[in-house]
Amino acid sequence: MDTMRWQDDHLLLLDQTKLPLTEEYIECWDHVILCDAIKKLKVRGAPAIGAAAAFGVALAALNYTGEDRAEFEADVKKAIADLGKTRPTAVNLFWALRRMEAVLEDIRTYSVKEQQERLIAEAKAVFDEDRAMNEQMGQYGLELIPESAGILTHCNAGALATAGFGTALGVIRAAHRAGKEISVFADETRPLLQGARLTAWELMQDGIPVTLITDSMAAYVMKQKLVDLVIVGADRITANGDVANKIGTYGVALAAKAHGIPFYVAAPVSTFDLSLESGLQIPIEERDTEEVRRVGDSITAPPGVPVYNPAFDVTPAELVTAFITDRGVFRPPYLETLRAMAETK
Amino acid sequence: MDTMRWQDDHLLLLDQTKLPLTEEYIECWDHVILCDAIKKLKVRGAPAIGAAAAFGVALAALNYTGEDRAEFEADVKKAIADLGKTRPTAVNLFWALRRMEAVLEDIRTYSVKEQQERLIAEAKAVFDEDRAMNEQMGQYGLELIPESAGILTHCNAGALATAGFGTALGVIRAAHRAGKEISVFADETRPLLQGARLTAWELMQDGIPVTLITDSMAAYVMKQKLVDLVIVGADRITANGDVANKIGTYGVALAAKAHGIPFYVAAPVSTFDLSLESGLQIPIEERDTEEVRRVGDSITAPPGVPVYNPAFDVTPAELVTAFITDRGVFRPPYLETLRAMAETK
Repeated sequence: MDTMRWQDDHLLLLDQTKLPLTEEYIECWDHVILCDAIKKLKVRGAPAIGAAAAFGVALAALNYTGEDRAEFEADVKKAIADLGKTRPTAVNLFWALRRMEAVLEDIRTYSVKEQQERLIAEAKAVFDEDRAMNEQMGQYGLELIPESAGILTHCNAGALATAGFGTALGVIRAAHRAGKEISVFADETRPLLQGARLTAWELMQDGIPVTLITDSMAAYVMKQKLVDLVIVGADRITANGDVANKIGTYGVALAAKAHGIPFYVAAPVSTFDLSLESGLQIPIEERDTEEVRRVGDSITAPPGVPVYNPAFDVTPAELVTAFITDRGVFRPPYLETLRAMAETK
Repeated sequence: MDTMRWQDDHLLLLDQTKLPLTEEYIECWDHVILCDAIKKLKVRGAPAIGAAAAFGVALAALNYTGEDRAEFEADVKKAIADLGKTRPTAVNLFWALRRMEAVLEDIRTYSVKEQQERLIAEAKAVFDEDRAMNEQMGQYGLELIPESAGILTHCNAGALATAGFGTALGVIRAAHRAGKEISVFADETRPLLQGARLTAWELMQDGIPVTLITDSMAAYVMKQKLVDLVIVGADRITANGDVANKIGTYGVALAAKAHGIPFYVAAPVSTFDLSLESGLQIPIEERDTEEVRRVGDSITAPPGVPVYNPAFDVTPAELVTAFITDRGVFRPPYLETLRAMAETK
């Protein structure tokens, strides 16, 4: 099961809104369909959005049929701009688009055909490197996981949120493969139920014991001493160590702290945005209020009831025990350690 | 809109599982249908369950057509036993059944007809007194509500959870009527969405501003300083002040504490169980796992995924700023103040 797969001249993208009941791939022949897929969360998860956007740029490049370099560049830059407007919070999107744009700048003197090939190769590299980073992250994370552990996670930071293997679930997978006795509590993660639909499904496929709970049960399972640690992914991490992640993460972090349970954030370097000082500067996406008024086809609230629907929240750095990254594990003081991380290779 | 209504010789019970889209009353002619309604949450909310159970006893009494006092008593006691097995956590159920049984003991020398009349009158009294207690509670709670306040509540502790007016929502209603500028955040309250379906609906009907959020957003709206206080109801409160209430209440209480926000519990004396020392002794109901795997007709998780589904959690006394009751507002040390409350009239 791949989140996405480049197929000669187009992208096959798993429609995650249909999971877990239907596994259906969307054929993406241009960046417009990818913009739509990102907005509608057919592909979601910060690293996966980044990879999808890179492929979107590649598709825009491939769709140019002339030989005029200036026209070509304008088309590709238009696609980059369009893709950049899809979702505001996950920084991997902008990271991937900047990376594609940097390549474009570097090779503007090449023929259109050569530029097309290079941009496709770069998108594939974004994808392949993400998978490799996750495997690496899993290895670094191993030291933090006891031989036997109850682990709580929120939303889906799994293979489906990335190019493969996953960030938070990557660490869990690595621990499971290393023979540790892992048992996972998956928050269902309202409103869009990525925990119930995606995390539970991924873990079942891998034979990793998982128990599904509603978001409202997280604090109670901690109180019952069923949870030894929390691992979540991230959509953007700022220089001071503040973490934007799926709405509900902050409440989980507060509950973990109240119970003395370590709270880990697993994310590749592409999720760190050290240009921002703190989480206050992260734009938080608000989504369609109808997401809260219904689940699938079921109406769950009085029609027209006012709704607040932030898709993310910000967990302050002081609640984060450590970051698990593809460059190692980093602990406070984050202002120093994260800067050092960014400077190493 | 009444939660239930005694109609000459039977009970009309609002089917709350159909709300907010359909307002439908069930005709209850015996206690068996009430047992089923309580188990299936067609009537729910600790005080409402108590009142419904009292009417169930009255129906069992009324359904006896002979004149043999011993047979009559056996029938009524059988109904009391059946009703006592419906749900384990809310103590109001047992409180109401004990009250009906005490009347039965007192009047066993009366004719069957007289006993029937007395038991019906007692059930009506349970119902009427609950409504009066809630109005009283609302008045006592007023002093705790600022002139302008954002209030967060979890689940439904409203008119629908009681004989009318509500406990937590009763205090909110009283504050609104007193001209205070109230704005409510209603947690949707998975798995059964009493907040979305019932609380949001009740408040809209009363013209009290309400914003629906998922349970996972509660901590974040507190962080954004949108919440000045929390008020919830309760299913059982022990001698030390521990509170069993709808699953998720504990997480809300932890978040409130982390933000320095007062956390109030509104409940009538019938919800206090001073025979228990602490929340550890409260039986916590676990419900059908399918409640977590679906919402209405929508499947939200992989079929067969293991689920943990406790219907309640316990909030420790140290997280409760004060109890709002029909006998006044009580603050720590609860071991002393709650005992004093029980001894006053």
